[in-house]
Amino acid sequence: MVKAKVFIFEHYFDGYPKETDLRLVEEELPPIKEGEFLAEAVFLSVDPYMRAYSVRLPLGIPFIGAQVARIIESKNVDFPVGRYVLGNFDWRSHTICDGKALKGHMFTQDPYILPDFGDLPVSLALGILGMPGNTAYFGVTEVLQPKKGDTVVISGAAGAVGNIAGQICKIIGCTVIGIAGSEEKGRWLVDELGFDYFINYKTQNLEEALKKVAPQGIDCYFDNVGGDVSFTIMNQMNRFGKIAVCGAISGYNEQNPKILPLQYTMVFNELKLQGFHVHRWLNRWMDGILQNLEWIKEGKLKYHETVTDGFENMFKAFLGQMKGETVGKPVVKA
Amino acid sequence: MVKAKVFIFEHYFDGYPKETDLRLVEEELPPIKEGEFLAEAVFLSVDPYMRAYSVRLPLGIPFIGAQVARIIESKNVDFPVGRYVLGNFDWRSHTICDGKALKGHMFTQDPYILPDFGDLPVSLALGILGMPGNTAYFGVTEVLQPKKGDTVVISGAAGAVGNIAGQICKIIGCTVIGIAGSEEKGRWLVDELGFDYFINYKTQNLEEALKKVAPQGIDCYFDNVGGDVSFTIMNQMNRFGKIAVCGAISGYNEQNPKILPLQYTMVFNELKLQGFHVHRWLNRWMDGILQNLEWIKEGKLKYHETVTDGFENMFKAFLGQMKGETVGKPVVKA
Repeated sequence: MVKAKVFIFEHYFDGYPKETDLRLVEEELPPIKEGEFLAEAVFLSVDPYMRAYSVRLPLGIPFIGAQVARIIESKNVDFPVGRYVLGNFDWRSHTICDGKALKGHMFTQDPYILPDFGDLPVSLALGILGMPGNTAYFGVTEVLQPKKGDTVVISGAAGAVGNIAGQICKIIGCTVIGIAGSEEKGRWLVDELGFDYFINYKTQNLEEALKKVAPQGIDCYFDNVGGDVSFTIMNQMNRFGKIAVCGAISGYNEQNPKILPLQYTMVFNELKLQGFHVHRWLNRWMDGILQNLEWIKEGKLKYHETVTDGFENMFKAFLGQMKGETVGKPVVKA
Repeated sequence: MVKAKVFIFEHYFDGYPKETDLRLVEEELPPIKEGEFLAEAVFLSVDPYMRAYSVRLPLGIPFIGAQVARIIESKNVDFPVGRYVLGNFDWRSHTICDGKALKGHMFTQDPYILPDFGDLPVSLALGILGMPGNTAYFGVTEVLQPKKGDTVVISGAAGAVGNIAGQICKIIGCTVIGIAGSEEKGRWLVDELGFDYFINYKTQNLEEALKKVAPQGIDCYFDNVGGDVSFTIMNQMNRFGKIAVCGAISGYNEQNPKILPLQYTMVFNELKLQGFHVHRWLNRWMDGILQNLEWIKEGKLKYHETVTDGFENMFKAFLGQMKGETVGKPVVKA
C-alpha cells in the first residue's frame, strides 16, 4: 500500500498566498490497474502561472503543477519502471496515471517520458528543457520575432522564462537589456549569460536608465511582469515596436481584479492588440477614399455630419466632440 | 490685401480644453508668389486626435487641423482657381500654400485636389471620404481583418471613425455591436446604419449586456476609446481575439499622464502587443526542447536552478518565486 502526500487547495488566495491556503494530507493509493503506472515525484515545479490560474480552480482538489517523477511500478508498456516521466501530476508525492492527462484536469497535455538529456540533470525538464524553456523559445521565435540588430528589453529577466528568452535573443544577434530587482540577478545576467545591460527597477529610475542604454529606442519587448514597469518600457518603444506578453506577475497578487493590468487578460486569451494611425497608408490614400465612395454609391455605406456654423465656433465644435455630443462627423462651415 | 483669421495655440490643455487655451487673431497675408495659391476655408474639421497631439505641439503657432478650402487665387497650375483642396491648413480662414505640406508642419501629407464626389458634399473630404473614412477602411481591412461571421465590437461607435468601421464590418459579413453613450446614437447605429446591436455604456451594465448579445464571445474589437470600457470588452474576447487600437479618447483629457491607458502609447507608436501561452505549440513541444538542448550542448544557452529540498517545502518555494527571491528556475527536490 502506497501513501501519497498531497497539497489540497483549501482557500482562494487573497493577495500573496498564505501557507494555510493549502493543506497537506496523506492519501492511500489503490493498486494500479492494467494500463496504469505509479510514479514517485523526484523534482516538482513552482511557477507564477499557478497563482494566475488559481482563480479558475475549484477548491478541495490537489493544487496544480508539473513534476518529474520516476516510474516505480507499471502495467503500461509505454511507461516502463525506472524511467523518468514529465506530468501535470499536481503537488503530490505519488501519482497513478494511465498514460494520459489526469481525468478532468485543467491541463490536457499528456505525460511523456523524458528525452535523453545526456549528462544534464532531469530537473531541467521543469525548466530550460520544459515548459519555461519552450515558453521562451516559441515566445521569441514565433511571437516576438526580433531581427538581428534589434534592441530587445526583457522584464522578469532573471526569472525562469526571462533569462532564456534573453539568451535566445542574443543567439539571434540582438542587443539585450534585462530588467530585474537585485544586483545579484543583474550580475548573473550580464556576467554569466551575456546580456548587454541590466537595469535594477527597484533602485534605478527605469525611464532614465533605458534612455541611457537604449538611446536608439526599443524595438522588441518580452513582457513577463505587466504593470508600471511595462508601461515605462512601452513608452520608449520605436514605431512598429513589438511586445510579446508572456505573463503579468506584477498583477497576480493584486487583491482588486479591476486594476489587474491589461496584460493579464491578454495572456489568458492570447489576444493581439495593434495600435495604428492612418498615415501608415499614405501611399494608398486614394484607394481608401475611392472604395468608400463606391460603397456610398452602392448604398452600402451611409454618412451623417454634425455641422456647426461659423469659423468662430471651431472651439465649441471641438469640445462638443470630445464630450460625446456629436453624432457622426463634426465639421465647421466657415 | 487678404486678412486671415487664425486660432493660435496659447496654453497647453489641462483636462478638457478651455476656450482661452486658444486665441483668435487676424493676420495680413502677403501677395502670393510664383508656385503658390491662396485658399479660403469652406469646411474645417475637428477631431479627437487634435487633443492627443496637442501635447507635442509648440505654443504660439496655429492650432492643427485639416480643412476643405476653395482656391481663390493661384500661380500654381496644379491648383487652379475654383477647385476644392484638402490640406492640413490648421485653424485658419485663409492659407497661402506652395502645393506641398506647410513647412515645418507636424503633418507631412501634401494637400490634394478633391477627387470627383459627384453629387456628394465636399465636406465629406473631412469625414467618410477623408482621414476618418480611411482610418476606418485601413483599420478594419489591414489591422483588424475580421472574417465573415465574426462578432465585432466597436467602441465610440457613433463617432466619425467608429460608425464607418462598423459599417465596413457589416459589408464583410460580421455581427456588429456598437458601444456609445446615448440612445439617439444607438438608434442611428441600429436603425439607419444596420448595426446588429447597440449598448449604452452610460446606462447599461456593459459586461452583462455584452454577455447577452454576444454569448458566443467577441472575436474582434475596434477600439476608439481605451480605458474601462475597453478593459471590460477585452475580458470577454475569445481566444486569439484581435484588437485594432485606433484611439483612446477616454484618456485624452486625463490630467495625470501616468494613468493614461496603454492604448494611448500603442496608437502613437503603432505598437503590436500579443499575449500567448506555450500550449499553443503543444504539437511542436519536442522541437523546442530539442533546440534548447542543442544550444546548451553548443554552449550558447546556460541555465541556473534554485533548488529547495523537501516536498513539504513546496509552499515556501512557491511564495519565494512570487516575491522575486529566486534566480533562474526554482524547483523542489522531493
